Amino acid sequence: MIRPLALAVALAMLPLEPSSGSPTPPSPFSPRFKGDALVQPTGYDTWPLVGSSLGLSYSGRPDNGPGTFHRVYMNPTAYDAFKKTGRFPEGTTFVLESYEAQEKKSIAQGGYTEGARVGLDASVKDKSRYPDGWAYFNFDNGAATTAKALPDARCHSCHLAHGEKDSVFVQFYPNLRRGP
Amino acid sequence: MIRPLALAVALAMLPLEPSSGSPTPPSPFSPRFKGDALVQPTGYDTWPLVGSSLGLSYSGRPDNGPGTFHRVYMNPTAYDAFKKTGRFPEGTTFVLESYEAQEKKSIAQGGYTEGARVGLDASVKDKSRYPDGWAYFNFDNGAATTAKALPDARCHSCHLAHGEKDSVFVQFYPNLRRGP
Repeated sequence: MIRPLALAVALAMLPLEPSSGSPTPPSPFSPRFKGDALVQPTGYDTWPLVGSSLGLSYSGRPDNGPGTFHRVYMNPTAYDAFKKTGRFPEGTTFVLESYEAQEKKSIAQGGYTEGARVGLDASVKDKSRYPDGWAYFNFDNGAATTAKALPDARCHSCHLAHGEKDSVFVQFYPNLRRGP
Repeated sequence: MIRPLALAVALAMLPLEPSSGSPTPPSPFSPRFKGDALVQPTGYDTWPLVGSSLGLSYSGRPDNGPGTFHRVYMNPTAYDAFKKTGRFPEGTTFVLESYEAQEKKSIAQGGYTEGARVGLDASVKDKSRYPDGWAYFNFDNGAATTAKALPDARCHSCHLAHGEKDSVFVQFYPNLRRGP
């Protein structure tokens, strides 16, 4: 026989949160590592976009064609925290997707739309792992399930020197330029 | 005296959802109307981006400059539904933000990044209001708190003729091209 009141009491006595002795379960938006390799982030298609660009180059315009579209996403927990505090919390994760620039697709007569995806990269803030707080990762357009931090010369040195806030190119990102 | 068990029982007996007689509260992502005017959507900076473009034109490339960046966002409930079913549910809302294309900002030597925002538009699917299901709205770059549906010739006719799926330009949107 089912005893609804007993069941209700039992359910009510279940703790709503883990006891203080339990480890806090990671947020689904937190970066995950296997050893010193970052696990490829998932679900970033629903993360906030902070900026997009086309053909961005730090050494002059590419000779041929428009270059690629970049989309930069930020994990939602860090986005919310930045909007409140103006600072990037530990665990901040940016995902960079690159897309081919297509011309004259469908009824488009001018301009560029996004074609096939051609790149997937990420950056993570983790002061316990990286001296300046940030590291950068390339996932071979999604083919790599994990990635080790790239050498500083690939991304970090330039971000550190030119990122307007805490190594981040907020100067390119309308959503972060607006500040908290 | 506090009686924890009595409190627990009382809490457990509270209904988890409104009774069937209560009206369902609208989702924060649902379109809101005042009469026949759409209220300007809010919070779309955290909605999924479905596509971006630069200088998109249906009548040839603009004579001067690169044109503007477009970002197209989709309300999360509709995005989730589309990913599952491949169809756009009632209440689907797209928001279109337009941004100036900046050159040589900061360390950028080539390509274009997003400058000031210069436009805010939306589209909504609501078969109870619009014969073909869709209507399009311009919010004067955010200055208008509400907007009435634009004449068909401004947006709808072209979407209806050329949108690859249910009047939507999924051909331009990588996230929707991938299908359910």
